[in-house]
Amino acid sequence: MVARGVLTFKSKPAIVSVGVTAGPLEKRKSLFSKQFDKLYDDEHCGLDTNEHAHAKMVEDACMIALSKINCVPSDADFLLIGDLVNQMTPSSFCAETNGIPYLGLFSACATSVSTIITAAVLTEAGMSELSLAGSSSQHNAIERQFRYPVEYGAQKPETSQWTVTAAGVVAVTPNKEGCPAIVAATIGCVIDLGMTDPLNMGAAMAPAAEDTLSRHLKGHGKNVADYDLIMTGDLGKTGFKLFKQLASNNGNDIESNSRDAGEEFYGNDLAFKSGASGAGCSAAVFFTEVIEKLKTREYNRVLLIATGALLSPLSFQQQDTIPCIAHAIELTMK
Amino acid sequence: MVARGVLTFKSKPAIVSVGVTAGPLEKRKSLFSKQFDKLYDDEHCGLDTNEHAHAKMVEDACMIALSKINCVPSDADFLLIGDLVNQMTPSSFCAETNGIPYLGLFSACATSVSTIITAAVLTEAGMSELSLAGSSSQHNAIERQFRYPVEYGAQKPETSQWTVTAAGVVAVTPNKEGCPAIVAATIGCVIDLGMTDPLNMGAAMAPAAEDTLSRHLKGHGKNVADYDLIMTGDLGKTGFKLFKQLASNNGNDIESNSRDAGEEFYGNDLAFKSGASGAGCSAAVFFTEVIEKLKTREYNRVLLIATGALLSPLSFQQQDTIPCIAHAIELTMK
Repeated sequence: MVARGVLTFKSKPAIVSVGVTAGPLEKRKSLFSKQFDKLYDDEHCGLDTNEHAHAKMVEDACMIALSKINCVPSDADFLLIGDLVNQMTPSSFCAETNGIPYLGLFSACATSVSTIITAAVLTEAGMSELSLAGSSSQHNAIERQFRYPVEYGAQKPETSQWTVTAAGVVAVTPNKEGCPAIVAATIGCVIDLGMTDPLNMGAAMAPAAEDTLSRHLKGHGKNVADYDLIMTGDLGKTGFKLFKQLASNNGNDIESNSRDAGEEFYGNDLAFKSGASGAGCSAAVFFTEVIEKLKTREYNRVLLIATGALLSPLSFQQQDTIPCIAHAIELTMK
Repeated sequence: MVARGVLTFKSKPAIVSVGVTAGPLEKRKSLFSKQFDKLYDDEHCGLDTNEHAHAKMVEDACMIALSKINCVPSDADFLLIGDLVNQMTPSSFCAETNGIPYLGLFSACATSVSTIITAAVLTEAGMSELSLAGSSSQHNAIERQFRYPVEYGAQKPETSQWTVTAAGVVAVTPNKEGCPAIVAATIGCVIDLGMTDPLNMGAAMAPAAEDTLSRHLKGHGKNVADYDLIMTGDLGKTGFKLFKQLASNNGNDIESNSRDAGEEFYGNDLAFKSGASGAGCSAAVFFTEVIEKLKTREYNRVLLIATGALLSPLSFQQQDTIPCIAHAIELTMK
């Protein structure tokens, strides 16, 4: 049986620009902060609420991605974004501000890639000359929604991950020389092995990442060695270790050419437990560290796998297990 | 300037099958109930929570749409669905149950059409032979999340709308003789005229519907008279009247060939105030009443405009205005 959910982009849509914004903690603590375009010294970005700051970060990321290619919002055909806030209001307010025709997408933290896939499909169909795609998260907004208001100072176990304050947006156009090309993708299936602990989402998501990796390789006739990098986001230390073990068990040894955005984001600082997460984490790392190393040809072919835990506080309260998903895109400079 | 967000499907993807499920109140009160495929006598569908019933309705709608074309879930390439519940858990649990590669989309009640547009784009790009698209809502789950638990018996003003318990799914394939063809679409821009009353969403959404209608007509070089039907969902009595007035002010007199799914859903029963709403309402009506009348050639060309209010309880509490959106698809039997 052919692997399902697998897409090939014959026209090779290009990522021609990126915009990444992040908060004050990320400015101080993220290993990638020097690569980010804009860093706020105030986690509220001068606004009144966490959610308004959240929207502002995405708006700024969009404007930055556009300005780098000398474009304005009215040049963009489509805006494909999403976030973790209930009903994704930060993304919708961003769409209101920039006025670009807007398709909201939700795959939790895998939204960074589901939006790029959708932009690439629109481009492949000849329907988009310029689309913006991406995702975002704001620590305080997400913590109080999914867990506790940060003011409570709730303790967390070693397996827990830290939601980053960051937004990442890419500009996607038809194929363009010298820019990373989107050559293939795999849309995830929901995988749920019965995990119920919302403070160990890396372990819950690892099997979804492995399923998507396996389907992508099989569907495109590729081997692990074909990639300079296979990067997940955001499994964290716990989940990434498990993912590599699951891949190995399935005959795919990725020890030497894999990285995880969540594991690396804050370095080895133990305050961040298992590492970073949030819809802005994979977006911020994929769109800076990885895109930059593709441009300098340090990487020639990469597979980016964004993972998402599709739970809600209510599904947790109702004792449901955690449904997880992972979407993948393959980028190349060849 | 060319109208933005406008898509033309040269390959004319087809809607080859539909599945619509609805709850016990809809069985008794909806004018369209006889056209629905499955009606539950228990609003919990025999399950323990509103949200589990919500997921069950979508799962059943998917299975019904597939069974009518002698298919099973493993025949489907993609599942493109969304709902109004925080983090769209009913849609995700449906994707877990049927195992189809899943892209979650959120445009509030406009998700019924944003999902079909995405299915049509995948089909146009040659990437999908069979996709399922649709949306759903469950009255009690949505009321307690956005307003009050129904047990409170809270009073509502005349402008308020009643969230339906229903799920609607279509099966989309490459062009097929004898089936309604998706020939064009328009992706909405967020329109926000400063309305803040969550109990008058029809009025808030009407300008978004008018904006999308106007862009669709301009972008495709069409006139109102080219359509046998222009149907919105779900503006309700209040919003639909306003929409027709706004369209007329803009030179588009749609009085004689327009309908609104929300206004008609429960007939003239005053208990439902301004009419029906919810992501399942437009899906249930568009996919039965409209598709059926296309098949019998009572309609030859229709424009379906699904409207969504992209607010959240939190954005309301933070005194934000209501961002609204409308997505349109044009179907034809010609």
